[in-house]
Amino acid sequence: MSSTYGEIFRIHTYGESHGGGVGVIIDGCPPSIPVSQEEIQLELDRRRPGQSEIVTPRKEADTAEILSGIHDGKTLGTPISILVRNTDQRPSAYEEMAVKYRPSHADFTYDAKYGIRAPSGGGRASARETIGRVAAAAVAKKVLASLYPGIEVIAWVSTIQHIQANVDPATITADQVESNIVRTGDPLVVGEMIDHIKKIRSDGNSVGGIIECVIRHCPAGLGEPIFDKLEADLAKAMLSIPATKGFEIGSGFQGTLLTGKEHNDSFEMREGKVRTKTNRSGGVQGGISNGEDIVFRVAFKPTATIISTQDTVTETGENTTLQGKGRHDACVLPRAVPIVEAMATLVITDHFLRQRALRGLP
Amino acid sequence: MSSTYGEIFRIHTYGESHGGGVGVIIDGCPPSIPVSQEEIQLELDRRRPGQSEIVTPRKEADTAEILSGIHDGKTLGTPISILVRNTDQRPSAYEEMAVKYRPSHADFTYDAKYGIRAPSGGGRASARETIGRVAAAAVAKKVLASLYPGIEVIAWVSTIQHIQANVDPATITADQVESNIVRTGDPLVVGEMIDHIKKIRSDGNSVGGIIECVIRHCPAGLGEPIFDKLEADLAKAMLSIPATKGFEIGSGFQGTLLTGKEHNDSFEMREGKVRTKTNRSGGVQGGISNGEDIVFRVAFKPTATIISTQDTVTETGENTTLQGKGRHDACVLPRAVPIVEAMATLVITDHFLRQRALRGLP
Amino acid sequence: MSSTYGEIFRIHTYGESHGGGVGVIIDGCPPSIPVSQEEIQLELDRRRPGQSEIVTPRKEADTAEILSGIHDGKTLGTPISILVRNTDQRPSAYEEMAVKYRPSHADFTYDAKYGIRAPSGGGRASARETIGRVAAAAVAKKVLASLYPGIEVIAWVSTIQHIQANVDPATITADQVESNIVRTGDPLVVGEMIDHIKKIRSDGNSVGGIIECVIRHCPAGLGEPIFDKLEADLAKAMLSIPATKGFEIGSGFQGTLLTGKEHNDSFEMREGKVRTKTNRSGGVQGGISNGEDIVFRVAFKPTATIISTQDTVTETGENTTLQGKGRHDACVLPRAVPIVEAMATLVITDHFLRQRALRGLP
Amino acid sequence: MSSTYGEIFRIHTYGESHGGGVGVIIDGCPPSIPVSQEEIQLELDRRRPGQSEIVTPRKEADTAEILSGIHDGKTLGTPISILVRNTDQRPSAYEEMAVKYRPSHADFTYDAKYGIRAPSGGGRASARETIGRVAAAAVAKKVLASLYPGIEVIAWVSTIQHIQANVDPATITADQVESNIVRTGDPLVVGEMIDHIKKIRSDGNSVGGIIECVIRHCPAGLGEPIFDKLEADLAKAMLSIPATKGFEIGSGFQGTLLTGKEHNDSFEMREGKVRTKTNRSGGVQGGISNGEDIVFRVAFKPTATIISTQDTVTETGENTTLQGKGRHDACVLPRAVPIVEAMATLVITDHFLRQRALRGLP
Repeated sequence: MSSTYGEIFRIHTYGESHGGGVGVIIDGCPPSIPVSQEEIQLELDRRRPGQSEIVTPRKEADTAEILSGIHDGKTLGTPISILVRNTDQRPSAYEEMAVKYRPSHADFTYDAKYGIRAPSGGGRASARETIGRVAAAAVAKKVLASLYPGIEVIAWVSTIQHIQANVDPATITADQVESNIVRTGDPLVVGEMIDHIKKIRSDGNSVGGIIECVIRHCPAGLGEPIFDKLEADLAKAMLSIPATKGFEIGSGFQGTLLTGKEHNDSFEMREGKVRTKTNRSGGVQGGISNGEDIVFRVAFKPTATIISTQDTVTETGENTTLQGKGRHDACVLPRAVPIVEAMATLVITDHFLRQRALRGLP
Repeated sequence: MSSTYGEIFRIHTYGESHGGGVGVIIDGCPPSIPVSQEEIQLELDRRRPGQSEIVTPRKEADTAEILSGIHDGKTLGTPISILVRNTDQRPSAYEEMAVKYRPSHADFTYDAKYGIRAPSGGGRASARETIGRVAAAAVAKKVLASLYPGIEVIAWVSTIQHIQANVDPATITADQVESNIVRTGDPLVVGEMIDHIKKIRSDGNSVGGIIECVIRHCPAGLGEPIFDKLEADLAKAMLSIPATKGFEIGSGFQGTLLTGKEHNDSFEMREGKVRTKTNRSGGVQGGISNGEDIVFRVAFKPTATIISTQDTVTETGENTTLQGKGRHDACVLPRAVPIVEAMATLVITDHFLRQRALRGLP
Repeated sequence: MSSTYGEIFRIHTYGESHGGGVGVIIDGCPPSIPVSQEEIQLELDRRRPGQSEIVTPRKEADTAEILSGIHDGKTLGTPISILVRNTDQRPSAYEEMAVKYRPSHADFTYDAKYGIRAPSGGGRASARETIGRVAAAAVAKKVLASLYPGIEVIAWVSTIQHIQANVDPATITADQVESNIVRTGDPLVVGEMIDHIKKIRSDGNSVGGIIECVIRHCPAGLGEPIFDKLEADLAKAMLSIPATKGFEIGSGFQGTLLTGKEHNDSFEMREGKVRTKTNRSGGVQGGISNGEDIVFRVAFKPTATIISTQDTVTETGENTTLQGKGRHDACVLPRAVPIVEAMATLVITDHFLRQRALRGLP
Repeated sequence: MSSTYGEIFRIHTYGESHGGGVGVIIDGCPPSIPVSQEEIQLELDRRRPGQSEIVTPRKEADTAEILSGIHDGKTLGTPISILVRNTDQRPSAYEEMAVKYRPSHADFTYDAKYGIRAPSGGGRASARETIGRVAAAAVAKKVLASLYPGIEVIAWVSTIQHIQANVDPATITADQVESNIVRTGDPLVVGEMIDHIKKIRSDGNSVGGIIECVIRHCPAGLGEPIFDKLEADLAKAMLSIPATKGFEIGSGFQGTLLTGKEHNDSFEMREGKVRTKTNRSGGVQGGISNGEDIVFRVAFKPTATIISTQDTVTETGENTTLQGKGRHDACVLPRAVPIVEAMATLVITDHFLRQRALRGLP
């Protein structure tokens, strides 16, 4: 049951990194939403390997095939099944991994959990699994565009290790993010970030960083009190992305340094609407959107794959060393930007339809 | 559906701050687990108002009544219903709130969502709702103690605004935390924290901070890949607690400053078990527990209730001011410690039973 | 998890026949629906013991207390908790049952499942559990009345053992059903049915029969293809009622004797609507309502409790006999009519809101 | 969400009759269960068209491709994705259907529900959708065989219109059922049933009937009280199969003619086990299996597709006639036998794992 996300707009992903392919079923998608294969492919291309000089050079076309649920460019209301075939399989590159646990990968924990493990690559733990999420979110994006035009979900690289971008969540555009291969929103640090990733990669090392995301023009009233708070579902969605270690919304961890008098967001009427003067809440109060920008940040640890010799143990419990090799992402953040957007889009779409069940369209 | 948590050990909470009471149904609890009313009450007493000089002086006994599912001190396998009556109702103290939105509270968002709102107090958004969670977790704790003795869940106040405790997650004990009313684990900062909270309260102000939590002796193999990763479910559980703004596990946000060579946790055999030399992963890899201590931190914003005049708007859309008054927690963290433990316990118990469904007891 | 019903309008019941009480939480109820305690009580009174000379004389007032979710006669959108205290407890009457398995009751299977059992009465298997369902359905009824006025759910006793009522589902009214204590819709058989139940009771015996139910003015389009077909969810809902052994919709089992040419429901335009000339489909086609009357029948076995000596075994595995005694329903059908209506109402309400999530109000 | 079945062993199906294909994801399957493509194919071959002279002559190979979740003949614990391509597409045969609603088919109700419809064939309402269920159940069968060897699920054709087979559920074997193309268990009526189906087909007409099913050697204790009673879940599962109109378990509708004294199943000790002397309960009491044979019957209406002229209406609301043509199953029952078995197997497997979560392996 772990491969399902959503209550109404519900997605089910499947697939190992090696095998027939990876994919997704979307169940609960409203009918008559216009969606084309090209729109889905566009999002997949943003996350696929080999897209630029700073990501893994693996050649994976990641071509989406729509198996069901869409006809003549429109959703039928029935399950939408999307399949992406695996193509670039080089099991030989993974032979050593089959018997030695890669540090900070999921090899050992999968064995601990299942007592059996896909013999090569990351298996189900591969980031390749996120293909299904991105494809599903491409459809969700069209649902929102049809039912509530104007909602925008934009993520960008906020930091790469110590290098910080300076970006205003209120004004950043998707084009600005896509204009550079590192997918940051600050032109002043693009060069430095790219150079740093290249240097780290040439060292056989890796880095992480922070991705920030804004959801703009979200109606007030989304999110459910108690367990399915909007921020709780966003937190879960983000921490479900491989390599993530933290989530904060609005003032986040820094907000703990303020007093209540400094932190509270006063209300005021603006253009006939109830608005907050500040946005330390990050667009949610009591688990429900308040109509302000929803702003959150996600921490990504440095990629676990490094080209270096590391201590580890074998499946049979002997100390050994593992020599990293092969193609890897020295920094996953540029490719993780569309994944963060995808998960945020899925959360919002699901809560949007939940709210429609409760009270009709906002 | 928003008031349900868990897949197998499933809890449903209900109740407004004013009205008949608050409570919980636990469904999916294994049979023949010994649980007494006193054990449940003990945990409720840790979160109730009026327990010490630094929390809200509201008088609420919060006495738990077991309505079903437990007989002669043992669970029956049927739904366990626990009710806590509301007693200390002073609706008059809330009259102003009924028409003015309290800044950084959920008054406005509840109206936006439902178009109707409980007329006094926080309604469903009141922290009083967490009573049901704490009661349910008291039962869950006994399930773990019966089926897998040794698992420990201990939370403590790590920071109050700028004041930091120095605590070792590997050795901190529940007694150490309970030995002081602020529930920190560092005796050297207890006095400073208490003084700071008192001062902030006397200013009519409020503060937040960070609660840290460790789950020790958790078996490897808990957590489900993809969406229900253990860290994802912990993140959701924590962000579902009122006033939280952030979650991080293991190296968290600071870990983004390290390179992969610095961050990776090498494996080694220790006492016949696969262990990591370091624990930057925070006890989870690929969403699954690896047998190391699970360590995470939760950011709490300063309490929204302050004794001060704030700008706000009325339900009918007019600018106004609101004069805060009444009894409040200047700092919720001491009372939030058992809530953090409760949610962590619920997450672990549910995943424990999910793993049992898959492969039997670990 | 077994005590939850519904996807959006979701109810959770709890409670044993002996203990603090029985009740229900309703989660997912739309806000601002007018509901009074009296309306809930009215439905409970229709199912409670002691209501007439042909049902069990147990004295149970079954008074509903609303603990949360409704304020000033309107739903808040938050969980509605309704509690009915247990009052007429006579554990002594059940002492023998505590060690001997009553034939065709659930004593043995509960022991087989849980290894522990409520010591007296039916415990969770008691029909008393249905109180929660009936209370929840009283709320659901108001939801439908508010959002889609006109839907009617009417059930009646169709047969008592061999005695058959002659009722037209298209015209039967709730008043006609309530006009007689056996709750049949055919005045010509009322006397015979009552006499038969009295005679059977005086023999210490019991009888079953068939309850028929019609849902009128249901919009076309409710029900979900594949697993959650409207008829599948109705079947599950009905077979979840204690003592039921069968379900059929439309032509049902008799329909298997017809050929396709005889069975098919031709379409025609009538008053500007697509209608069927006949209704062998029973109001559903492919799992989805077609706007015609939804008509189904539910088989109830004779009550398992009889005043007679029966062979059985003890908990410790010894052959023995059990002498039935105490107060019992010689025929549950008159009291089961509101339960059938309740479950049908819950199914329709849930599917109604599911359809609203998908496409808005019908 | 309607295309998902199961709580722990959870399946998600997708696919229209025309389009890329149909398939299923199985999530929650225990790891290390041996399953081969051949075992899945074997079950699919039992339901596929063209398998004998009395079923539709459509040529569909229905070859299963395993995309994920199984490696080297063993389940990995990760989602198992199985795809069957659509091959025999003749949209031209369906042109008329695209604008005229076929009587007693789901064309009109899909339009009413979604406002859009797959343009040819039954779309999602096609019985082709059951391919995913049968494939999933082939895997479930292996789960049961691994974890609780001995459980048997056997279904057979009990009646074709008025022709009744005489079969003993306690002794019927799978081989006996498979030994004849009509899949009945009574050799004395095989010829008559086959002749009748051929005659009906040559008339352009169709017939239905009843399929009976037995689950033998099921442990006592499966099924959950209240809503997820074993019989309730079986009823839902069966009514989710296309063309079904009724379900009964044990004594069923006939049992309503007995008195309690006649109907009750007395207990006795037999070979050290608690057993019932009779089995009118049909293997379940209070929603939980009691260790006796679980016996139920499912009513199938005559196939809606007939080669005849029928009155109907167009999508645009005009009265018209529709001339049936093309290849059809004059009687679906022979092909429905493996589908009934599949759904029963899925129900039992899911409840088996639910019980394992609660108390460990039975």
